[in-house]
Amino acid sequence: MTQHGRAPADLEFWFEFGSNYSYLAAMRVEALARAAGVRVLWRPFLLGPVFRELGWSTSPFVLQAAKGRYMWRDMEREAAKYGIAWRRPSVFPRTALLPMRVATLGAEAPWIGEFTRRVMHQNWVEDREIDDAPAVREALAGLVPDPEAVLAAALAPDNKLRLRANTGLAGARGIFGAPTFFVGDEMFWGNDRLEDAIAWAAPGQGRA
Amino acid sequence: MTQHGRAPADLEFWFEFGSNYSYLAAMRVEALARAAGVRVLWRPFLLGPVFRELGWSTSPFVLQAAKGRYMWRDMEREAAKYGIAWRRPSVFPRTALLPMRVATLGAEAPWIGEFTRRVMHQNWVEDREIDDAPAVREALAGLVPDPEAVLAAALAPDNKLRLRANTGLAGARGIFGAPTFFVGDEMFWGNDRLEDAIAWAAPGQGRA
Repeated sequence: MTQHGRAPADLEFWFEFGSNYSYLAAMRVEALARAAGVRVLWRPFLLGPVFRELGWSTSPFVLQAAKGRYMWRDMEREAAKYGIAWRRPSVFPRTALLPMRVATLGAEAPWIGEFTRRVMHQNWVEDREIDDAPAVREALAGLVPDPEAVLAAALAPDNKLRLRANTGLAGARGIFGAPTFFVGDEMFWGNDRLEDAIAWAAPGQGRA
Repeated sequence: MTQHGRAPADLEFWFEFGSNYSYLAAMRVEALARAAGVRVLWRPFLLGPVFRELGWSTSPFVLQAAKGRYMWRDMEREAAKYGIAWRRPSVFPRTALLPMRVATLGAEAPWIGEFTRRVMHQNWVEDREIDDAPAVREALAGLVPDPEAVLAAALAPDNKLRLRANTGLAGARGIFGAPTFFVGDEMFWGNDRLEDAIAWAAPGQGRA
């Protein structure tokens, strides 16, 4: 079932800033992957269109009240378990189109990990709106020489189309929620499977 | 957040023979609880009526094709991870009314754990119908002096009503899937949370 004896495979991390379990994974993925010698490929995509394609008008945590109530308690416990800061946001799910476009633009840039964690922190700890140019500027500060140029490039038609195409690809690959990890064609859904996905990418380095 | 210094609390295990992730939990719960000094309270309930109450005509894994496809692959990997035998059944979800009634009758009997594992094995390894008197008789063999008497008592009106009442209680307590664990009022959903639930019941004994 595993790939003993090979070099570690890459880990695709499909995420959305508005997704609460993506938050837990985003704060953990880079350190865990580095420890296992695995490269993270950042794959921002829009969860809303994927949900609508599946027939859901919004997050299942909103549509299903019992599951939503449980999720907020689970998040509180899980964040404590991992030692990750957490406050229940006053708006859920938050739209994140602008920072998602910036993440799309920077997906292969060295600043993508830190930028992602900063935007997540704005949403899930500071309870701030993130589909917002000043918030995104702050998140870029110190990471890129010219945040305004990055914002402009993020809003260019080709980059908008790239995010739309990645979102379509997410659905085509069978993604139905976030976070989702891929190691080659092997799919892992949910923050709970992050360790398994890394172990799949680097057999013998992870826990499995 | 935890209960340091107290005696371990009890762990309620809410399960259904037709639920695949209940299978993984049922095969693991007794050994893990014993190691932590935690008593398991077995809580069989019918998932179908809970789903219907939530507006779903059947399992979400049937209603949502993408999630269902993923789940079968996840089950295969998870069973391998835990070293638990597993074969994808030809019928899903299987109705389990008769063995659920027997489990309700025996919920506090010493044979409940072994009976539960045997019925789960019939469904998830042998791919057999389980809502079936001969299968249930086999599962009871050697565990009770008189399997026929147990079957008769399971079919008595008061026991049927008890299962119905427990199913209503599941919904009232916020259960929306199986397995679900409770430690007092603290709810944990899914086989992935079994270790956390045990650690909640017996702080310092589990991994958390």
